[in-house]
Amino acid sequence: MASNSLGQVFRITTWGESHGKALGVVIDGCPSGLELDETYINNELEKRRGGASIYTTPRKEEDKIEILSGVFEGKTTGAPISLICYNKNYDSGSYEPIKHIYRPGHASFTYLHKYGLHDYRGGGRASARETLCRVAAGAIAKKILSQKNIFPLTFISSIGGISADITDPISEEQIKKSPVYCPDTHASNQMEEALKAAMTSGDSLGAVIECRYMNVPVGLGDPVYEKLSANIAKAMVSIPACKGVEFGSGFLCTQMLGSTHNDIFCINDEGNILTSSNHAGGTLGGISNGMPIIFRVGMKPTSSIKKPQPSISTDKTSCNLTLPENSRHDPCLAIRAVSVVEAMASIAIVDALLMDRLSKL
Amino acid sequence: MASNSLGQVFRITTWGESHGKALGVVIDGCPSGLELDETYINNELEKRRGGASIYTTPRKEEDKIEILSGVFEGKTTGAPISLICYNKNYDSGSYEPIKHIYRPGHASFTYLHKYGLHDYRGGGRASARETLCRVAAGAIAKKILSQKNIFPLTFISSIGGISADITDPISEEQIKKSPVYCPDTHASNQMEEALKAAMTSGDSLGAVIECRYMNVPVGLGDPVYEKLSANIAKAMVSIPACKGVEFGSGFLCTQMLGSTHNDIFCINDEGNILTSSNHAGGTLGGISNGMPIIFRVGMKPTSSIKKPQPSISTDKTSCNLTLPENSRHDPCLAIRAVSVVEAMASIAIVDALLMDRLSKL
Amino acid sequence: MASNSLGQVFRITTWGESHGKALGVVIDGCPSGLELDETYINNELEKRRGGASIYTTPRKEEDKIEILSGVFEGKTTGAPISLICYNKNYDSGSYEPIKHIYRPGHASFTYLHKYGLHDYRGGGRASARETLCRVAAGAIAKKILSQKNIFPLTFISSIGGISADITDPISEEQIKKSPVYCPDTHASNQMEEALKAAMTSGDSLGAVIECRYMNVPVGLGDPVYEKLSANIAKAMVSIPACKGVEFGSGFLCTQMLGSTHNDIFCINDEGNILTSSNHAGGTLGGISNGMPIIFRVGMKPTSSIKKPQPSISTDKTSCNLTLPENSRHDPCLAIRAVSVVEAMASIAIVDALLMDRLSKL
Amino acid sequence: MASNSLGQVFRITTWGESHGKALGVVIDGCPSGLELDETYINNELEKRRGGASIYTTPRKEEDKIEILSGVFEGKTTGAPISLICYNKNYDSGSYEPIKHIYRPGHASFTYLHKYGLHDYRGGGRASARETLCRVAAGAIAKKILSQKNIFPLTFISSIGGISADITDPISEEQIKKSPVYCPDTHASNQMEEALKAAMTSGDSLGAVIECRYMNVPVGLGDPVYEKLSANIAKAMVSIPACKGVEFGSGFLCTQMLGSTHNDIFCINDEGNILTSSNHAGGTLGGISNGMPIIFRVGMKPTSSIKKPQPSISTDKTSCNLTLPENSRHDPCLAIRAVSVVEAMASIAIVDALLMDRLSKL
Repeated sequence: MASNSLGQVFRITTWGESHGKALGVVIDGCPSGLELDETYINNELEKRRGGASIYTTPRKEEDKIEILSGVFEGKTTGAPISLICYNKNYDSGSYEPIKHIYRPGHASFTYLHKYGLHDYRGGGRASARETLCRVAAGAIAKKILSQKNIFPLTFISSIGGISADITDPISEEQIKKSPVYCPDTHASNQMEEALKAAMTSGDSLGAVIECRYMNVPVGLGDPVYEKLSANIAKAMVSIPACKGVEFGSGFLCTQMLGSTHNDIFCINDEGNILTSSNHAGGTLGGISNGMPIIFRVGMKPTSSIKKPQPSISTDKTSCNLTLPENSRHDPCLAIRAVSVVEAMASIAIVDALLMDRLSKL
Repeated sequence: MASNSLGQVFRITTWGESHGKALGVVIDGCPSGLELDETYINNELEKRRGGASIYTTPRKEEDKIEILSGVFEGKTTGAPISLICYNKNYDSGSYEPIKHIYRPGHASFTYLHKYGLHDYRGGGRASARETLCRVAAGAIAKKILSQKNIFPLTFISSIGGISADITDPISEEQIKKSPVYCPDTHASNQMEEALKAAMTSGDSLGAVIECRYMNVPVGLGDPVYEKLSANIAKAMVSIPACKGVEFGSGFLCTQMLGSTHNDIFCINDEGNILTSSNHAGGTLGGISNGMPIIFRVGMKPTSSIKKPQPSISTDKTSCNLTLPENSRHDPCLAIRAVSVVEAMASIAIVDALLMDRLSKL
Repeated sequence: MASNSLGQVFRITTWGESHGKALGVVIDGCPSGLELDETYINNELEKRRGGASIYTTPRKEEDKIEILSGVFEGKTTGAPISLICYNKNYDSGSYEPIKHIYRPGHASFTYLHKYGLHDYRGGGRASARETLCRVAAGAIAKKILSQKNIFPLTFISSIGGISADITDPISEEQIKKSPVYCPDTHASNQMEEALKAAMTSGDSLGAVIECRYMNVPVGLGDPVYEKLSANIAKAMVSIPACKGVEFGSGFLCTQMLGSTHNDIFCINDEGNILTSSNHAGGTLGGISNGMPIIFRVGMKPTSSIKKPQPSISTDKTSCNLTLPENSRHDPCLAIRAVSVVEAMASIAIVDALLMDRLSKL
Repeated sequence: MASNSLGQVFRITTWGESHGKALGVVIDGCPSGLELDETYINNELEKRRGGASIYTTPRKEEDKIEILSGVFEGKTTGAPISLICYNKNYDSGSYEPIKHIYRPGHASFTYLHKYGLHDYRGGGRASARETLCRVAAGAIAKKILSQKNIFPLTFISSIGGISADITDPISEEQIKKSPVYCPDTHASNQMEEALKAAMTSGDSLGAVIECRYMNVPVGLGDPVYEKLSANIAKAMVSIPACKGVEFGSGFLCTQMLGSTHNDIFCINDEGNILTSSNHAGGTLGGISNGMPIIFRVGMKPTSSIKKPQPSISTDKTSCNLTLPENSRHDPCLAIRAVSVVEAMASIAIVDALLMDRLSKL
């Protein structure tokens, strides 16, 4: 079943395996006239690589994409935009000794069962490396949004149970200066300590990522099944390691009274209607209400850990799993996932922005 | 933009407004040969009505659906199944005095802005009454699943901050005997007290609903963007009042170590591979792994409350909103939403079950 | 597999069997703000009934649809529009004696094989009665187009080999005054004679329907697979009895030279670019070029004929098929299909019109 | 609007411009377990190149595709299959002098109008070079079908008005030995003469392509809008230069009586039900009936001709168009299109074959 596409009118299709020849994405439905070049996209990809962060895996690839189609004389033409990234720096051989062992928390078990065969090398299609394509496509979505001054602030609000104290306003600069993308300096330092400890013990940590999409106009998202919130939820849970998503007050709303949870409408100085609080997280009936779109994503601790773990082999015998020495894995996937969350949100929002052109006669 | 359909191969399309002539749903893609009659579907709808519960609104409709097509001599034919429920017991007139006031937490603001006009009566298309159609369609999905002994256990695990102590195994009977669908009798009693207090004060409560789908075979869900978990997430967040969804350990996973969060593979007495814990909530790489599919949904407190609230009218003047005396609203939407969550999960899972027929040559 | 929907953003979903309780259609994606009432739609349906024509079957139903949702205070709201038509005048009993006989040219053989069971009554889902829903939905599409002065001229250009001599300009009035929707009076008379002869002999005739959609602006249709022409072709061949579709010069183009077939660009008095001929039938690269969209559809002779025919029964024995005395069938389906062709073209074009809003940044 | 994908469950997405860096296709939904390598696909592509035929353009590229993903150890994995073909042999410069002139019969006029800008080089996205990707994807579809002994016979039945006399049975060998893929040797010779004359005069010819898909089982295609015939029609009309498609008796059926057109059911020696004639072209109600799927496609004469033609420039002045000396264009596009027709039919049929797995419980 075709399952590698997302989006209704701004539609991405990704392909490629972790240790295959290349990965790529086709973006179909990007309107014509957008200025676009490889440098811009590759700069966005840099964020996913974690820059100089010591907390992201040292795959020594350039991870640079090339634009193969859809752009002419510096502008999109309305034709599908094909982006490709060749895999260069990988060593599938190191996975050979453990290829018959089901890795805890990994999809090899389910893929093998579903398809009868599995490209196990580096996780194959289920590898988080696929998210490179999401970030590349998301960069285009983000650029369209930025032209209307719609932009995201995405950060880590908790790692391994250490929660940041987030006080408005937050800036992109604050986020970027933290090696773990956490705007609260004190918490950021503590998170770094926790990450170092996890690395030392060969373990991993989970985290919460928060995304706030600013300046989203009223009216994005379609009723009932194509709610902006529902599409963001799907986009988030499609990210490897994501175990939950919540909007605005989120699960905390379940402990509140209606009279305190309801966001009260008011009028700002420019005469626009908005709400005095944002428990809703920026949508009413799943349609954007002009307040920031706010949601949080819970990311599980990286499944690949240095610590040996008991498991079962494909011939159903018990065994112990020890990952190869040179295998790459982040102590906390969420750091790298910050850019993925932002990319997926951008794709969901630009899709809704375009679809909204169809609402009225 | 067409937005009232859900599902890739088992596809539902709902229509109808709260105070319109009727509501309905077309189920397209239901395989032929399923025994189906109106009585079965209407019994499932009874659960959504909350039965004799005093905590669900007393709309005195029968809410009975009629099958208009797709069934011949007691069996589905493969043709679209059209279900209809005529609206009988409503009084749109009582909303007239407040039709120009934006109701906090409601979608009238966003709908009016998006479409330029709005059928405000009873919430129109944004009313939770639409979920009647979801439950009717979900009943069919559930029946297909039940033929393979796949079945759900759906219950309330917390209301207004009062959390149930859930100990395995839970039974459908345990759940049903609680007026609030909570299998923990002690917590159920406390929840009832809280609900009575909210009703007295004209306020409302939020809640967490948990769904466990049992006996789901390995292999359901498609990679990358059509993950079973991602589609469940979308289905859940499309439900009115849902502010979050989490799978397995959920947001708690963000405080765990990889070494403790990873579910270890083992072999059961029948020689099948499963995991000794279920932090993953039944999916790996978004594909079912044979363990129960477990997820929780956070539902906000009902936005419609008896307490007066400040608001803004459509001509942008401040005002006070007091709902009409005879307006119907539940003190806790989640009680009724238990059946909706179950229905939407059933639809997502049956869609994945059918799609899985396409995986191998 | 869900297969009862058509259209990408203006999306119709039809349901119902010939002898079931009702038939209906849900139109999802109709923009808000369109004035709409039942009278308008029912007047359009009248054309499908063939009016007072003696050449269309005398099913004595009113065939009136009711609007159940999506319209408020006389205007569309952006919510799905549900239309229903109850079946009243049918007698399934008369089909009982022949229910085990495969009817030549009918779909009972393929439906029964595909689904394992079949609602044989009156053809069930495969009946041309389903086209009632297409015409109702098409009426809405046509109304949207008419607001931009885009309108169709649909007529019969040949019946049973008798070809009309079509000379520009044609008017709606000319078409309507012919009982067989043929603007050439002389040919129309001959066609009537042929139809009477066919009725007398218990036989049936095929026909060619031509549709010219006028004032379609440049730019409708999307490249490669969503060409306007490709979508019209699919829409046409989905009509029961349609065996072919051709655009502009059609199959005749295969006998022409490139130098004579190419439509030469020129500039008209208003300074607009158009072409001096219209061999292309109004599209270049599948995208409308500002000239009338012109296509023809070949409709086979009605399969249901009074003449006895040899056939095979479901238990694989040879037998003779004689249709029940009171069975209804047109001597030429195409007369009734004129409105269906027009409706389907309207749906395809309005879908393209809306999608074109997404082309540019 | 996303428009570069086709197929519901076996879904192709093509990308790339005639004179861009590369072209490619992503095939999503190919079941796992199919043996596949580049050699097989490239051999199929050879047919599109026209082999040694002097009647197809001498673009001296290898046109070899590379498999970038979705195949592991010689078999498909269920992951998307990405195929790429780099453009090597092109000279965009030669189009510079005429880039401001609308070329008759070409899509530059409509693309420029629709998108506001156009990659004019070699026709950009509208170039027939895109069909290379269709043939590559179609090769995979064809291979799946061949495993069930379902196979096509595709040939030219008329060029420039010269019609072949087709007598059953036809073999693949007969077709291949004709330089114009026409199994009637006498007609083939005449067609060659006509082609040489057209080349001499700098003109071009149209043609009719017939495709017969053999051994298609009963039951493929879904009712109403996803009829096998309707999807084939869309697939065909999406091919550049296609102006019509007809099934079985096609437009000729409009001159026949129902009593002679109806295919009579009978039983063959193996006890299977089939029909004694095949006017229907292999479908009833749009669903395959076990007879060969037969359809014909009308291809217009190549629009690019050596003869000078009058035209209009983008600044709306009259001018004369003379194509560059070294521009490539076939005297009859249809020769090359034989493989495209076959590929698109294969994609439509394999899609229906897979979808049919969903029909029964």
